[in-house]
Amino acid sequence: MPASMRTAVLRRIGEIVLEERPVPEPGPGEVLVRVAAVGVCGSDVHYYEHGRIGDFVVEAPLVLGHEPSGEVVALGEGVTRVGRGTRVSIEPGRPDFTCAQCLAGRYNLCPRMEFFATPPVDGALAEYVVVHEAFAHPVPDSLDDDRAALLEPLSVGVWAARKGGVGPGSRVLVNGAGPIGLVATQVALAAGAAKVVVADVNAHRLEVAAGLGATATVDVSRSHLDGLEPEVLLECSGHPGATRAALEVLAPAGRAVLVGSGSADLALPLGSLQRREIELTATFRYANTWPAAIALAASGRVDLDALVTGHYGLADTEAALTAPSRDRTAIKSVIRPGD
Amino acid sequence: MPASMRTAVLRRIGEIVLEERPVPEPGPGEVLVRVAAVGVCGSDVHYYEHGRIGDFVVEAPLVLGHEPSGEVVALGEGVTRVGRGTRVSIEPGRPDFTCAQCLAGRYNLCPRMEFFATPPVDGALAEYVVVHEAFAHPVPDSLDDDRAALLEPLSVGVWAARKGGVGPGSRVLVNGAGPIGLVATQVALAAGAAKVVVADVNAHRLEVAAGLGATATVDVSRSHLDGLEPEVLLECSGHPGATRAALEVLAPAGRAVLVGSGSADLALPLGSLQRREIELTATFRYANTWPAAIALAASGRVDLDALVTGHYGLADTEAALTAPSRDRTAIKSVIRPGD
Amino acid sequence: MPASMRTAVLRRIGEIVLEERPVPEPGPGEVLVRVAAVGVCGSDVHYYEHGRIGDFVVEAPLVLGHEPSGEVVALGEGVTRVGRGTRVSIEPGRPDFTCAQCLAGRYNLCPRMEFFATPPVDGALAEYVVVHEAFAHPVPDSLDDDRAALLEPLSVGVWAARKGGVGPGSRVLVNGAGPIGLVATQVALAAGAAKVVVADVNAHRLEVAAGLGATATVDVSRSHLDGLEPEVLLECSGHPGATRAALEVLAPAGRAVLVGSGSADLALPLGSLQRREIELTATFRYANTWPAAIALAASGRVDLDALVTGHYGLADTEAALTAPSRDRTAIKSVIRPGD
Amino acid sequence: MPASMRTAVLRRIGEIVLEERPVPEPGPGEVLVRVAAVGVCGSDVHYYEHGRIGDFVVEAPLVLGHEPSGEVVALGEGVTRVGRGTRVSIEPGRPDFTCAQCLAGRYNLCPRMEFFATPPVDGALAEYVVVHEAFAHPVPDSLDDDRAALLEPLSVGVWAARKGGVGPGSRVLVNGAGPIGLVATQVALAAGAAKVVVADVNAHRLEVAAGLGATATVDVSRSHLDGLEPEVLLECSGHPGATRAALEVLAPAGRAVLVGSGSADLALPLGSLQRREIELTATFRYANTWPAAIALAASGRVDLDALVTGHYGLADTEAALTAPSRDRTAIKSVIRPGD
Repeated sequence: MPASMRTAVLRRIGEIVLEERPVPEPGPGEVLVRVAAVGVCGSDVHYYEHGRIGDFVVEAPLVLGHEPSGEVVALGEGVTRVGRGTRVSIEPGRPDFTCAQCLAGRYNLCPRMEFFATPPVDGALAEYVVVHEAFAHPVPDSLDDDRAALLEPLSVGVWAARKGGVGPGSRVLVNGAGPIGLVATQVALAAGAAKVVVADVNAHRLEVAAGLGATATVDVSRSHLDGLEPEVLLECSGHPGATRAALEVLAPAGRAVLVGSGSADLALPLGSLQRREIELTATFRYANTWPAAIALAASGRVDLDALVTGHYGLADTEAALTAPSRDRTAIKSVIRPGD
Repeated sequence: MPASMRTAVLRRIGEIVLEERPVPEPGPGEVLVRVAAVGVCGSDVHYYEHGRIGDFVVEAPLVLGHEPSGEVVALGEGVTRVGRGTRVSIEPGRPDFTCAQCLAGRYNLCPRMEFFATPPVDGALAEYVVVHEAFAHPVPDSLDDDRAALLEPLSVGVWAARKGGVGPGSRVLVNGAGPIGLVATQVALAAGAAKVVVADVNAHRLEVAAGLGATATVDVSRSHLDGLEPEVLLECSGHPGATRAALEVLAPAGRAVLVGSGSADLALPLGSLQRREIELTATFRYANTWPAAIALAASGRVDLDALVTGHYGLADTEAALTAPSRDRTAIKSVIRPGD
Repeated sequence: MPASMRTAVLRRIGEIVLEERPVPEPGPGEVLVRVAAVGVCGSDVHYYEHGRIGDFVVEAPLVLGHEPSGEVVALGEGVTRVGRGTRVSIEPGRPDFTCAQCLAGRYNLCPRMEFFATPPVDGALAEYVVVHEAFAHPVPDSLDDDRAALLEPLSVGVWAARKGGVGPGSRVLVNGAGPIGLVATQVALAAGAAKVVVADVNAHRLEVAAGLGATATVDVSRSHLDGLEPEVLLECSGHPGATRAALEVLAPAGRAVLVGSGSADLALPLGSLQRREIELTATFRYANTWPAAIALAASGRVDLDALVTGHYGLADTEAALTAPSRDRTAIKSVIRPGD
Repeated sequence: MPASMRTAVLRRIGEIVLEERPVPEPGPGEVLVRVAAVGVCGSDVHYYEHGRIGDFVVEAPLVLGHEPSGEVVALGEGVTRVGRGTRVSIEPGRPDFTCAQCLAGRYNLCPRMEFFATPPVDGALAEYVVVHEAFAHPVPDSLDDDRAALLEPLSVGVWAARKGGVGPGSRVLVNGAGPIGLVATQVALAAGAAKVVVADVNAHRLEVAAGLGATATVDVSRSHLDGLEPEVLLECSGHPGATRAALEVLAPAGRAVLVGSGSADLALPLGSLQRREIELTATFRYANTWPAAIALAASGRVDLDALVTGHYGLADTEAALTAPSRDRTAIKSVIRPGD
């Protein structure tokens, strides 16, 4: 094992530099993973461009990246579930495991969660990271490094569909055809949804959605949401106006899952929601989703390759982060720290 | 059976007149009930004062009243569940029983629901009303006519607590100490809630809430919601600002049940709801609540008498409707059409 | 409309005769359907061979058949949802729609249910049948008469998967590869199950299961259930020993859905179930399943054609009923009363 | 802190001896508790009399007792939630906190659970025990040492009622009026159950149940279960015949929670369960129940004092264990290691 490693560090807004840092050592129950691939998330871009997301403010140099895959190269004390050489997808956080939220199965709401690439916790844009063995999920060979990395956004889609109660025969509206909307679409289809309509203003992304199986697409810059009367809304746009418009067309007893984030308040039509007894759920990351995500990707029900529109080395992190703003057809950049 | 009966009719905004109308005849599966008592609801007052609630507009003379009790006096064809002389609490509506919502157990969302005192369907401020036998719920002797009538608002509280998942040990915040807030408070306590904090700006109503068992009360005109960190919010005020303030203090994974109605939009802090994965449910009337309401009232766990602050005859309907605006200590008027 | 029609009547055990009977007239809310196809169910065979199923005893001539499709040819009073000429799949029963079970969304448990081909209620082996319009489900052209008929057994599979909570990533064991096991297998796969292992002693049926997508099959006459550790058991065999063996391998917190019926008691290993907190659900028919069944079949996710191993005219009803006992490769007979 | 402490050790079947053992030291995240009171459970008695419960066999000296309360007297590294001097009720186990079951909120099903007084893990019949801080639940002054100890059996009742979905208006049958049946009865009432009928063959225990609020009692040695038609069965007797009889009277869609343990198989009437779509849940200990148990006991809704029929010192452990077999009115012995 080398003593030091290269790391991509966000020094200040708009500036990423490579730093040589010590390779971390795994503590009890932890493993050291050599990072193979890291997907770039919109939140990484947001920290790079704005230095904050809501109350999370970058006040010191921060390593971005929370969608990593890799290979286990060292074990901390007491590790039993994975061995050296195991290829893993990393669930990028560390809850305390013993608070009331964790014990209730909601570790994503743990108040002491240390989540990758969320200030002040460093992320995975480095050659090595340490993670608890419980969150180093072994993957089969059918999942290459990219796919193993993209199990993280897929987990967001799994969580959304689960919260929305999508099942055989469901009529689903997916708002927003970004990476999350595209995985949510696929998970809804894999869960047996009868109809999955995808709405966006980006024609290219709608084409991608159609190619991934969406039963219909709506360019909401040109036309209104049609007579679908969805039972489930998977809101992945974060756009207040689009969210409201989608809520208005939900069927009675419909469920809305608010996945997309945005800065503004959401103005809801109370009376209209009441007459239909709409249920809204807001989501935060995910819990217990990796086994389902692995199964969906490994069986080919979900196509993660279709999301990847560019590969980058660690030295090209800024290019990876700015790809979507330069190219409207860019969906998801993948950084390979070993390249 | 007399051929005609007295009826209190809302002719136009602010004007109720007594009319003599034919006694209705029960059709197949229906029963005729001699009305003993009718609770006055805020919606009755609203139609009287404003002529509309949202999209429901009074465009023709309307009989108000949807909280009736009485005695079965005639049976339609094929009625088997109740007999003449049975004292009943009336569930005030008639769904079509066979649409997708009804078949799914959500008859309150039936698009063909004919609900008492909702334009253009007449209500119960009359000497007799007809109702489907399934919605004429027999009551034990321990429930007098007033209590049997007030099972309707109690049902709203039962529905709210059920939707909120209130159970043994729950920490509950009830927003608004009007009639619905006061029954919701009692149902939450009867369901085993550990803490039930009631918030309002009306000191008298907070006193009533305390008398009914609220574990704490908060006058939100004077102080802020304290460190309760409720798991469940039963929002019965309909006030956007109070709703928002209450949502902000909910515990992670908290549930909010939006019962109170209001004209304005609700501006929700999306990011804050997401970080805690708050679930919001908006409610519309109730379904399958009468058996629980009867049990709670009959066993003394819920005190409905405490809500009644005035009795009126049919000729005094206007006085019954205006009581709350004349007297801040008024909670619930009861009209007895037979007096 | 003709005045009379041909009907296949079970006169006594082992004897079916054709009778000419009056064409029934649809009452209010009902429609008359010209029957196109009727699937034969194991219960039909059981009544034919034994004259009873548990407490349901054939004490008078009975018309069998409860898996019908057809075309609406006449409307009763007040019918609005389907018109003459509509091709429909018939949900074969009539609950009272207004009892406590119906109002709660569990109409399959209605104590006054009149279910096709369950003594003393006649079934669909006739040229015409009457059904409530709510249970005459329109089907798209992609579902031919056979498929429309087989939405009934498919509904049993939908109900089983729903009760079992099968979803993306689930590990499922299906016990029994008869018609119900084969639809349950397909629904589980359509719901996103990661693994669906099918167990039976009939090698041919296991081949069919494999052809329909089962991820593994086990001939339990030769080998034991492997290390699947399923989260969900869809028990479609009705065999006490096989049920017990399957229960023993369920994962902690596993759910077992007991669909298959059998005469004997089920001896359960209480301590073993407790240590894993297994949940058992026994099912009876289905409720609110047709929309999902239509969607699954119409989208091609479920292959119903693979179940059909023989077509018969009404005059050949006995041959249709005895096909499975004559031929181990027979799965499902379909009778076409119009032929 | 003393170096050694007295411990009551089960040497072999029927023989408990006092041993002097080293006071254990709390590891990271753990606390040392001076034990104030320990309730005696039927499982303690069973190990004492038979040396095994199912697959759990006493093969080496074992300390019994898993219902302890006490005071925190020393803190392991990193403990933050409780301080020295805090009075606590101990949740008697240690899951691994990070396996799939734990992460899903089902830590009671953790395959690596180390549970007090379950071979080979020692229990709490000692002057001191070590427990993870997450399982040392602070109690208010209103809960004395006995009550704090008996939160453990109360948790079993909370878990049963939760699994059974007991809520306002529920009709509940409690089978068995031993300590668990008596707490289950009280929790069901506290959850708003309309009727709670308790069945047993011990007239004295039925009297205690009636005194604690049971709405009816049935001596099943003399009479049959009446026409209650319960929606929920809380089976706390472990008696196969009584379990079966109770299952037969459950209402359609009823839920049965199998809490009581017994050696024999349970023979279930499959067809009868199917016709009513009964759900059975078998329970194993509990998860996330202490906050509710504390609230119920502290508010006086549950009376734990009524269960205590004898106090003993550590030296009288055998007398505590044999009390129920000597005296049919004995319910629960409490041992005070400090006496």
